[in-house]
Amino acid sequence: MKGNLLIIHGGGPTPVINASLAGVINEARKHSEIQNIYGAIGGIKGFLEERLIDLGHQSQEKIEQLPFTPGSVIGTCRYKLTEGDYPKLFELLKKYDIGYFFCTGGDDTMDTCNKIHKMEKDFEIRVMGIPKTIDNDLALTDHCPGFGSAAKYVAISVDEVGRDVEALNIHVCIIETMGRNAGWLAASSLLARKRAEDAPHLIYLPERGFSEEEFLDDVDNLFSKRAGIVVVVSEGLKDKNGVSLVSPKHKSAINGFGHPLPGNVSHYLAELVSEKLGIRTRSEKPGLLGRVSMALQSDVDRQEAIRVGEFAVRSAIEGKSGLMVGLDRISDSPYKCELELFPLEKVVNVEKPVPEIYINKRGNDVNKNFITYCQPLAGLLPDYMRLEERWVKV
Amino acid sequence: MKGNLLIIHGGGPTPVINASLAGVINEARKHSEIQNIYGAIGGIKGFLEERLIDLGHQSQEKIEQLPFTPGSVIGTCRYKLTEGDYPKLFELLKKYDIGYFFCTGGDDTMDTCNKIHKMEKDFEIRVMGIPKTIDNDLALTDHCPGFGSAAKYVAISVDEVGRDVEALNIHVCIIETMGRNAGWLAASSLLARKRAEDAPHLIYLPERGFSEEEFLDDVDNLFSKRAGIVVVVSEGLKDKNGVSLVSPKHKSAINGFGHPLPGNVSHYLAELVSEKLGIRTRSEKPGLLGRVSMALQSDVDRQEAIRVGEFAVRSAIEGKSGLMVGLDRISDSPYKCELELFPLEKVVNVEKPVPEIYINKRGNDVNKNFITYCQPLAGLLPDYMRLEERWVKV
Repeated sequence: MKGNLLIIHGGGPTPVINASLAGVINEARKHSEIQNIYGAIGGIKGFLEERLIDLGHQSQEKIEQLPFTPGSVIGTCRYKLTEGDYPKLFELLKKYDIGYFFCTGGDDTMDTCNKIHKMEKDFEIRVMGIPKTIDNDLALTDHCPGFGSAAKYVAISVDEVGRDVEALNIHVCIIETMGRNAGWLAASSLLARKRAEDAPHLIYLPERGFSEEEFLDDVDNLFSKRAGIVVVVSEGLKDKNGVSLVSPKHKSAINGFGHPLPGNVSHYLAELVSEKLGIRTRSEKPGLLGRVSMALQSDVDRQEAIRVGEFAVRSAIEGKSGLMVGLDRISDSPYKCELELFPLEKVVNVEKPVPEIYINKRGNDVNKNFITYCQPLAGLLPDYMRLEERWVKV
Repeated sequence: MKGNLLIIHGGGPTPVINASLAGVINEARKHSEIQNIYGAIGGIKGFLEERLIDLGHQSQEKIEQLPFTPGSVIGTCRYKLTEGDYPKLFELLKKYDIGYFFCTGGDDTMDTCNKIHKMEKDFEIRVMGIPKTIDNDLALTDHCPGFGSAAKYVAISVDEVGRDVEALNIHVCIIETMGRNAGWLAASSLLARKRAEDAPHLIYLPERGFSEEEFLDDVDNLFSKRAGIVVVVSEGLKDKNGVSLVSPKHKSAINGFGHPLPGNVSHYLAELVSEKLGIRTRSEKPGLLGRVSMALQSDVDRQEAIRVGEFAVRSAIEGKSGLMVGLDRISDSPYKCELELFPLEKVVNVEKPVPEIYINKRGNDVNKNFITYCQPLAGLLPDYMRLEERWVKV
């Protein structure tokens, strides 16, 4: 089928969203059915405003740099289409002769993508979803492009901060990771722990109701044994009743899909420890850094993101539509994932939390089986040196 | 003079504190006057507790890895010696036959070092200070080992976060850098700004009294022109009366030298913008990460840190004492620094703020001359790609 390809990004950038874009562009250029490759600037909202960039005629040098470029080079947005938007949308799809419609994003974006696929139209269009979320909470796929790099960022950061905290050995350091409803990123900090005494010393996921009392007990107990403690918390921590630990104070803290943005959990907990236990406590909130760091991008993640983009194009050329590309793990060791297609309608509105089997009974740690899952996605991590313990006795 | 060498770390780790240590060890091994090389575990407090490690007999492989190891491999502390500590200290220096006494640290550590040098003793000891601070606020030296890497971390982080904020284009992002009294690190974010419209859009240093009113005006004005704004603030921001913007609430927030630890300035300002202007605002506080990141370590910084350590040993072997090694800039382009020695008594208790000439009149930006100073220390920064602006018109 002859036509133009339009690609749209939705939700927050990941370290490899531009890598998937490179995969789409490179593959699309190989198929004569695809006449032009357009990118919507600023997501679906940008398309409704007819802000389109020609991706097919960018220099090869630019395309080669794409997988190593942070942010989203075509922008993105968090915009929920209203009923009134659809007629305009379909009019524009016809106007620009879009035969191939690709959305890269998380659950909200796949939902938009699915709706566009399902609606009745008087023209043919092949709709494909490309998964992208550092939160790793999309259903059916083994994992999501973006997660591996963000997991690597969390693991290395916790390892390095752990060395800092160990060197001073006087305080509690609370590191906040992204992850509103799923604790995959907080859990990935476990990769930093090479010896039982290494950071992270406590890990709290939003999958379990959080008890401030138990948390203070956990910190107090640990601090009586060692004076340098690293605690990893997910930004989306909720109490036993499912209420966010820190509610956003202002209505500006609601995102475009109506989801409330979490407050500053690490700051809140640091104040709590400081006040209740009298222990010096710091909070660290690298926040956005974990989804843009190019230096800590995972090689596996980047390569998979590219493959996912390529596969979306090949599948659409074969006539497929209404599907999301996903990854199916064939083997842990050696790590091997194959590409799969999942119906968008089965993907959307299903969140994938960290399974109970990975979380310990107390809900303050993640067990080692998680490493088998997560390690290949983050890739090789540095193994920082420790001195030989040659004590001086005179 | 025959004797053992003792090296002690003070204050927070930097990305290159272990590099200076490697320089000391490697050089000390070349001189037969130095019999053993000891490291105090956990700073001066560790020495008082006789926790010493043999550094001279570590494997060469370990020493080679040292410059690439985060934290402080021999620990560190923030402990102010009391009058009562000195007799014990001198007793131990004799017991362990220390002829060469090296302290690596910032102003507080150099002060300790100077006091030990000045006090009357019945034995000979050569005392050398090795500068180390990401804050870059030590007097006399052109810059301090540790600053270049931390500046590189800030610059790349602000560049990358800027790409994320630009992609979504809906909010204000406030990034907090370390720097209690000097704004060198906040200023170094300027390296990220390649075009006038790039992040950082506003930079506030503690050298200037901060006005919340002017700040809100600055953000409001900018936000009316562009919807994605990155603001960099130093953790040590003070109002026009010199009062910290956010006072620590708890007495646990006082460090070992009696200096109060700053509150969470970025979080406070994000709430302020959100509340007063109704603009969605995030705060990012990478905190400790900027002083441990090995991936963003500056090559120049690492090499200089090693040279500083080596030079301290050579100088002491030549009979010098009571001095701090420093860097003297010979040329900006090509960048060249020579090693110098400064009397400890002239270094201590003098803070080096960012000079007025680098700060704009409004106090919300840093001028380009600062780049000439800072760029060679951070080294080459990534120049991330932007697409060609090929707009689609149908």
